[in-house]
Amino acid sequence: MAEGFRFTLHATDGRARTGVIETPRGAIRTPAFMPVGTAATVKGMKPADVRASGADILLGNTYHLMLRPGAERVARLGGLHRFMNWPYPILTDSGGYQVMSLGDLVKVHEEGVEFRSHLDGSRHFVSPERAIAIQRLLGSDILMAFDECTKHPATYDEAARSMHLSMRWAERSRTAFLEPSGQGSALFGIQQGALFAELRRESAERLVELGFEGYAIGGLAVGEGQEAMFEVLDYAPDQLPADRPRYLMGVGKPADILGAVLRGVDMFDCVLPTRSGRTAQAFTREGTLNLRNARFAEDMGPLDSRCPCPVCARFSRAYLHHLFKAGEMLGPMLLTEHNLWHYQQMMDGMRQAIADGAAQAFARTWLEVPETLS
Amino acid sequence: MAEGFRFTLHATDGRARTGVIETPRGAIRTPAFMPVGTAATVKGMKPADVRASGADILLGNTYHLMLRPGAERVARLGGLHRFMNWPYPILTDSGGYQVMSLGDLVKVHEEGVEFRSHLDGSRHFVSPERAIAIQRLLGSDILMAFDECTKHPATYDEAARSMHLSMRWAERSRTAFLEPSGQGSALFGIQQGALFAELRRESAERLVELGFEGYAIGGLAVGEGQEAMFEVLDYAPDQLPADRPRYLMGVGKPADILGAVLRGVDMFDCVLPTRSGRTAQAFTREGTLNLRNARFAEDMGPLDSRCPCPVCARFSRAYLHHLFKAGEMLGPMLLTEHNLWHYQQMMDGMRQAIADGAAQAFARTWLEVPETLS
Repeated sequence: MAEGFRFTLHATDGRARTGVIETPRGAIRTPAFMPVGTAATVKGMKPADVRASGADILLGNTYHLMLRPGAERVARLGGLHRFMNWPYPILTDSGGYQVMSLGDLVKVHEEGVEFRSHLDGSRHFVSPERAIAIQRLLGSDILMAFDECTKHPATYDEAARSMHLSMRWAERSRTAFLEPSGQGSALFGIQQGALFAELRRESAERLVELGFEGYAIGGLAVGEGQEAMFEVLDYAPDQLPADRPRYLMGVGKPADILGAVLRGVDMFDCVLPTRSGRTAQAFTREGTLNLRNARFAEDMGPLDSRCPCPVCARFSRAYLHHLFKAGEMLGPMLLTEHNLWHYQQMMDGMRQAIADGAAQAFARTWLEVPETLS
Repeated sequence: MAEGFRFTLHATDGRARTGVIETPRGAIRTPAFMPVGTAATVKGMKPADVRASGADILLGNTYHLMLRPGAERVARLGGLHRFMNWPYPILTDSGGYQVMSLGDLVKVHEEGVEFRSHLDGSRHFVSPERAIAIQRLLGSDILMAFDECTKHPATYDEAARSMHLSMRWAERSRTAFLEPSGQGSALFGIQQGALFAELRRESAERLVELGFEGYAIGGLAVGEGQEAMFEVLDYAPDQLPADRPRYLMGVGKPADILGAVLRGVDMFDCVLPTRSGRTAQAFTREGTLNLRNARFAEDMGPLDSRCPCPVCARFSRAYLHHLFKAGEMLGPMLLTEHNLWHYQQMMDGMRQAIADGAAQAFARTWLEVPETLS
């Protein structure tokens, strides 16, 4: 890996792994969940409170940050860590996923992607070289190669064409990353290939030839459903090097994450705990709760009697219900904090369980309550 | 005063006073600024962070809380302190001011006030007796007598009629407070009389006959302007007992507060620091800043280089500008926190200055920068 980066596996249990990624800005315990800090903030959270929830690393969105406040501006202000007061590791996506989501506003060429900003309609162009440059300007610790997230559903031919483009872009990303030097940061390649094992294998082989500090599994969690995703995860992680971190992008619900850990994935990011917090959805060991529900109006209990978070220690379901009914900011703030703790408690428990050889049992116990909304 | 309550003056400087109100839930250093927690939350702030800013006491709004979540509900949930996790003193207003602000939705009788909720149009009736009962149900430490906030401008006859009604209601409030027992809490009477010294004197005399644990100066900060307000404050505090706290309701800007302290007022509440925080207005020693202003886009300095608050220690003006431009919740959260610290720093400095015999000099120095928005 790049200087200052080291991935060490401490234990495995079946295909599940636990270990640590050391970086110049601190250690990332794996399996790791990365809260999403889209616009240089985890919405509704002070960075110290994100840290206290157990987060070792945040994800920043290149697409959003390049538009506002702008990568060059962030660089002039001392980089993203200083800007948002998060001195710990940051992983940035390449912007590809968000750009591709713009629909009619985007045009994909061999050279890169032209698009119009969703904010003001201004024209922009991102290539693999520019995506790396932007992530460098932000000061990212873990950069992602620029790729095309293959749309779902895709035919074999569509998936092959898209994957091959991503692999050419991966090579250009790697070259850009190494010029003049990738020292102090790491670059992850992204495997594509949709739901086709043969394409996934070809993509993995191509990425390994190029050589990356870590490997992401891309193109999943795009509407294929958990069953199809798990079918891919039954083989995709093993196509990637065992001695490098494996990152499943944009995943997911607790059952998705635990199922992926059991299949050999080390890193995750998802807006679910934060977005749910803003829409009154609480993750608890008793299932997912909708705090707007009138049945909580006089419920003096904590969100989750087994949760060690500061919110459960201090506030009742009745109070949170009131805050959401009254449209008070504190509702989203507190529920986001609880949900992040819930996710990190899950990761922490899973890490310990892998070390103890009890990964399957832990996942079963954690998920014994269905995740339906109530 | 009521059992468990004691007001002790430590020092005076001219008419300015500093001291402490001891209550069963803790001490209130005076002059005191009370952040406003309208709906059982200081908007955008965790209670521990409100406390850390230097607040000894919060204000809760009877009108809002009686409508949502409801006084009886709060009582069933263990009272307002437990509900919102603020174990320190709480002062509740009587609801009169907000009710009177409803305009066409309100009808005032000798018996009390009929009104329709601004939330759902439901009918409600509040009398002095009901206002005291509601504040008891909330578990308030310092209750306010139910009064009519005289509209501005008012003729002498209008002001006299309104003040006399408030004094009859003050007597009914006091009687309700003492039945069965006012122990464990305090009731403040509210002086009215608009801008007429003679009516203010009559009101004060009537209130003192009834006997209250503290006295508020009502009917100011309703549009009369600082000059007219200070004219009243040149005599009104001295009409009230020197050995009881004096509370100027709904005030105000820093210059209003410091000017009132110099005229003998001990307690204040105002939404200005919190509301301004949500609208990108920062109070600083260099004047008031509008963080949306483009000139802050690359300003790496703190909001206020002389401010000891956690926001100034951690975040730049550029970052706060970005948060407001991006519509991120963290902007209002951080600016509210800073503004509350700013106000409490001002109160703390004024308390110290009074003890040092330097109240006038402190006020002049603190206010040396005009409060104009920039």
